[in-house]
Amino acid sequence: MSPLDGVQALLFDVFGTVVDWRGSVIKELEETGRKYGIEGNWAEFAQTWRTGYLVNTRRIAEGGAGASSVDVMHREILDEILATPEWKKLGDPLGPEERAHLNLSWHRLRGWPDTVEGLYALKKQLIIATLSNGNIRLLVDMAKFADLPWDTVFSAELFQSFKPNPKVYLGAAAHLSLPPENCAMVAAHIYDLRAAAALGFKTVYIRRAGEGGPDIKMEDIKSKADGGEVDVVVDSFVELARILHG
Amino acid sequence: MSPLDGVQALLFDVFGTVVDWRGSVIKELEETGRKYGIEGNWAEFAQTWRTGYLVNTRRIAEGGAGASSVDVMHREILDEILATPEWKKLGDPLGPEERAHLNLSWHRLRGWPDTVEGLYALKKQLIIATLSNGNIRLLVDMAKFADLPWDTVFSAELFQSFKPNPKVYLGAAAHLSLPPENCAMVAAHIYDLRAAAALGFKTVYIRRAGEGGPDIKMEDIKSKADGGEVDVVVDSFVELARILHG
Repeated sequence: MSPLDGVQALLFDVFGTVVDWRGSVIKELEETGRKYGIEGNWAEFAQTWRTGYLVNTRRIAEGGAGASSVDVMHREILDEILATPEWKKLGDPLGPEERAHLNLSWHRLRGWPDTVEGLYALKKQLIIATLSNGNIRLLVDMAKFADLPWDTVFSAELFQSFKPNPKVYLGAAAHLSLPPENCAMVAAHIYDLRAAAALGFKTVYIRRAGEGGPDIKMEDIKSKADGGEVDVVVDSFVELARILHG
Repeated sequence: MSPLDGVQALLFDVFGTVVDWRGSVIKELEETGRKYGIEGNWAEFAQTWRTGYLVNTRRIAEGGAGASSVDVMHREILDEILATPEWKKLGDPLGPEERAHLNLSWHRLRGWPDTVEGLYALKKQLIIATLSNGNIRLLVDMAKFADLPWDTVFSAELFQSFKPNPKVYLGAAAHLSLPPENCAMVAAHIYDLRAAAALGFKTVYIRRAGEGGPDIKMEDIKSKADGGEVDVVVDSFVELARILHG
């Protein structure tokens, strides 16, 4: 018996799990900088942008106020960064149109090397859907850009909150007419899997470079068979497809 | 200038527009009948089932009460039909499991001959999504069964109503971050297109055998260029892809 027996649908976290947001955003920032002859620590810029998003979505997931669309939220954070003394050098030449274009770099993220092959293989076996805090348009654009063959796109936007709020996970399962135990959450972040597991979802942890988080080391996350807390640990979607195929 | 200039997303009605529900459901009914040695007017059975759905969704769209999932609604109507004197002969041998299987024939509908080729061509040009009264799981199963490459699946279920209630159309456009005029509704039913047009959506009427409706003849529906009320009239999705390609 496999720990994923009975699973009919996989729900995927997207940023970091499916796509390499860090590499893709740094690349677009570098290109923008080059255009204006500006140098800087683009990795730090990308991390600040991402951290702003994490802080905002977490606050809203707990009931706080804030932009409900990640597109709007990303733009607010971008404008804040570009107004700091460190990044004014880029903020000054960057008009509204250039800012809008740069903001949409989150729609143009590339998959990890195994992502496309793995998703196509998984799609033949069961339902594959996003379950992301990103807004639907962002996820649809990204899927077209990066060739991600989702059966459907679930976004926290549909449930007026953000992960890890329970209504996001339960809403997706309900729309698939499945109880949580017949769905598995796939993520590179343990907080996402813990929230899903608490509601009865199966859990798949995938190791992705740079996505371990500050509180826990990637190598310390183990499957229940190895004494850990998640159902399955994998290094790629291709490996996950092989496990599900039995 | 084409009447569809500026359109970035196509929203598709599904039953009758994308899939030949009539042919597919009649076939499953015939097979069920053959299994139990029962003959009957399966086309009439299918039409009664479909009409029950239309009456129910319309009542709920106008604010009335009823099953909010089409799966549940289809099953309630099926049970009613199987309890009539005419169809008791099938109802008697058909247990709960067989009824559940028959009910899911709505998840196993085939596209019209041009559907798959046309949708793949359209998907290369813009966003293609369902906008159906069918529930999400039904639409996801059907897409896998019939190879319908949706970018995402919108269902009236997400908006707690049914077409032609305005919030269904406006909800889909909002989730795509598009104003209605940048979306086109594609349907084989004029009531659906009229509701969308009243909200500012572009409209594509597609002629599908048997889908004209009782109040209006298929051949009387014309494009605005021909003095009619819809933006474009086509006979196939392949033709639509050609028009959009310019």
